[in-house]
Amino acid sequence: MRIAVDMDEVIADTMAGILEWFRREYGYQLTPELMAGRPLTDLIPEEHLQRLEEVLREGSFFADLPVMKGSQRVMQELAERHEVFIATAAMEYPGSFAAKFQWLAKRFPFIPPSHIVFCGDKSILSADYLIDDNDRHFRRFRGQGVLFTASHNLNVTGYPRVNGWVEVRRMFLKGLS
Amino acid sequence: MRIAVDMDEVIADTMAGILEWFRREYGYQLTPELMAGRPLTDLIPEEHLQRLEEVLREGSFFADLPVMKGSQRVMQELAERHEVFIATAAMEYPGSFAAKFQWLAKRFPFIPPSHIVFCGDKSILSADYLIDDNDRHFRRFRGQGVLFTASHNLNVTGYPRVNGWVEVRRMFLKGLS
Repeated sequence: MRIAVDMDEVIADTMAGILEWFRREYGYQLTPELMAGRPLTDLIPEEHLQRLEEVLREGSFFADLPVMKGSQRVMQELAERHEVFIATAAMEYPGSFAAKFQWLAKRFPFIPPSHIVFCGDKSILSADYLIDDNDRHFRRFRGQGVLFTASHNLNVTGYPRVNGWVEVRRMFLKGLS
Repeated sequence: MRIAVDMDEVIADTMAGILEWFRREYGYQLTPELMAGRPLTDLIPEEHLQRLEEVLREGSFFADLPVMKGSQRVMQELAERHEVFIATAAMEYPGSFAAKFQWLAKRFPFIPPSHIVFCGDKSILSADYLIDDNDRHFRRFRGQGVLFTASHNLNVTGYPRVNGWVEVRRMFLKGLS
């Protein structure tokens, strides 16, 4: 079985990285709980969002993101039993390619480079499952989309949902101790 | 219909770029005709091949490659009638991501960034056709591989073959003037 796994907000805690950046840069004390179901535009002025956008475009921001809790352990287990690919829509930030590649090599060394995919439109993926926080990628995907819960997708329905990596493990490795 | 198209030696004339680099760097007068069916290792000493490898790893080499003859015109026609993706196995040279992306934006601006894929194992692609000079990518690909002739694949059989972009046009756009 082949499982494709998204990067930002699935194995990389991009939102934690962004909130930490806003804290360091402007002193905002934002928490994931406060953000639940709210877009950043609700709470942060346009000018500061633009500055974030510049930082994301430059790219090295992605080299230091925290790892999503539980993802390393469960991904390793998944990779022992299934064919696991990482698929990230890095085309929005071409400057992030190198940083993302380095991050993966360091945090997920058991995923070979040949199993990393940078793409824009994930309908190009040939896989049985795609674990992603963004349901737009599921619409034309030929396999089964699995929605990984993030603050921006709490109201999305129509796909099996996993709340974190314990639930990913349960879905794909059930029956194992 | 969805057609995935490789980059090096299909739309980018990587071999011409490499031969030109050897001419500039070491004065070798190598032509594509001389190279036909021969690996570079037959003609070039190990030390100079290693230097090339370093240059390829650094990556900016890929920003200046010549365009494969006829590819821009035919790709544009293909993209008007089919869903065309560029799929390049850039994982061997992660330093080349940015240069390749820029090259594509400049030479093939009609291909949107969302239709660019950087991957290692092309069996991850969900497409009806894959035009590539490397038959190893066809083995697990679920669509139909189409071999684009290059000096290193002259003896490969088992796949439909195209000798250049006039023949690609004939295969995918026949019946059009």
